[in-house]
Amino acid sequence: MSNVIISKQELLEHRLGHRNLTRRVVEAFPEKELFEFSIGGMRTFAELVQELLSIAEPGLKGIVNQATEPYNHELKLNSKTELLEKWDNDTPLIIDLYNQIPEERFSETFNLFGIYNFPIIDNILYCIDNEIHHRGQGYVYLRALGIEPPFFWER
Amino acid sequence: MSNVIISKQELLEHRLGHRNLTRRVVEAFPEKELFEFSIGGMRTFAELVQELLSIAEPGLKGIVNQATEPYNHELKLNSKTELLEKWDNDTPLIIDLYNQIPEERFSETFNLFGIYNFPIIDNILYCIDNEIHHRGQGYVYLRALGIEPPFFWER
Repeated sequence: MSNVIISKQELLEHRLGHRNLTRRVVEAFPEKELFEFSIGGMRTFAELVQELLSIAEPGLKGIVNQATEPYNHELKLNSKTELLEKWDNDTPLIIDLYNQIPEERFSETFNLFGIYNFPIIDNILYCIDNEIHHRGQGYVYLRALGIEPPFFWER
Repeated sequence: MSNVIISKQELLEHRLGHRNLTRRVVEAFPEKELFEFSIGGMRTFAELVQELLSIAEPGLKGIVNQATEPYNHELKLNSKTELLEKWDNDTPLIIDLYNQIPEERFSETFNLFGIYNFPIIDNILYCIDNEIHHRGQGYVYLRALGIEPPFFWER
């Protein structure tokens, strides 16, 4: 079909590639700095990652179930192991939920978390963009700590 | 058409929204810090923006003209005014070039800059993602400088 510039499956793979890279950025942090280091009064990378976790799977669940409960960024994950376990547990859930969204719903307006009233495609792109944005901030934290981050183009 | 999750025009608008936000991040920097401040041995935000400029319009020009010359990140733009002028000059060129790429070419593999041999859609998404990534780093620089960055969700 000539008017398909990216398929639903390709967008999922794009997202999972980013998710894989973000996981490696979490891994690159020493435990202490993951939960304690930040710059300019910003949140720690552990807090940023908990924001990502609190919108990725719950956002898709909301879209699939047409539920508009608010998100909760405070997941109370207190170790790198807990963060990575939650990350890994959510990945298959994300795949399963995403696959349940019919293509025709992507243009449908949905009030994500009861506050983001946009087409579903925009809500999904926002999740990906927000992950790239905060992960880029994690790269600066790592550089400031003297740690080489993973290559951006490796997914 | 039920299998279109995002149209070519919608992806352009998505990109232009990001481009608009990045411009406001450039504007938020004081002249001196734009060219001199960085964290952890990273590039200054002016250098990062010149990278973005050196792949955005030249990348699309390469795709449209099927030319695979390498990019040149060193644009030698030495003031905030020059950076913003170049940014503004390139925006209509980006729109025009993007519009010249037929939808059926988005899945075609193209060796962007003679080194990134991927489907055109991946090369275009890479440009957007790379801009979000580096702009997120600019946010940390601004926070470290005590400057409030623009809201991420405002495009």
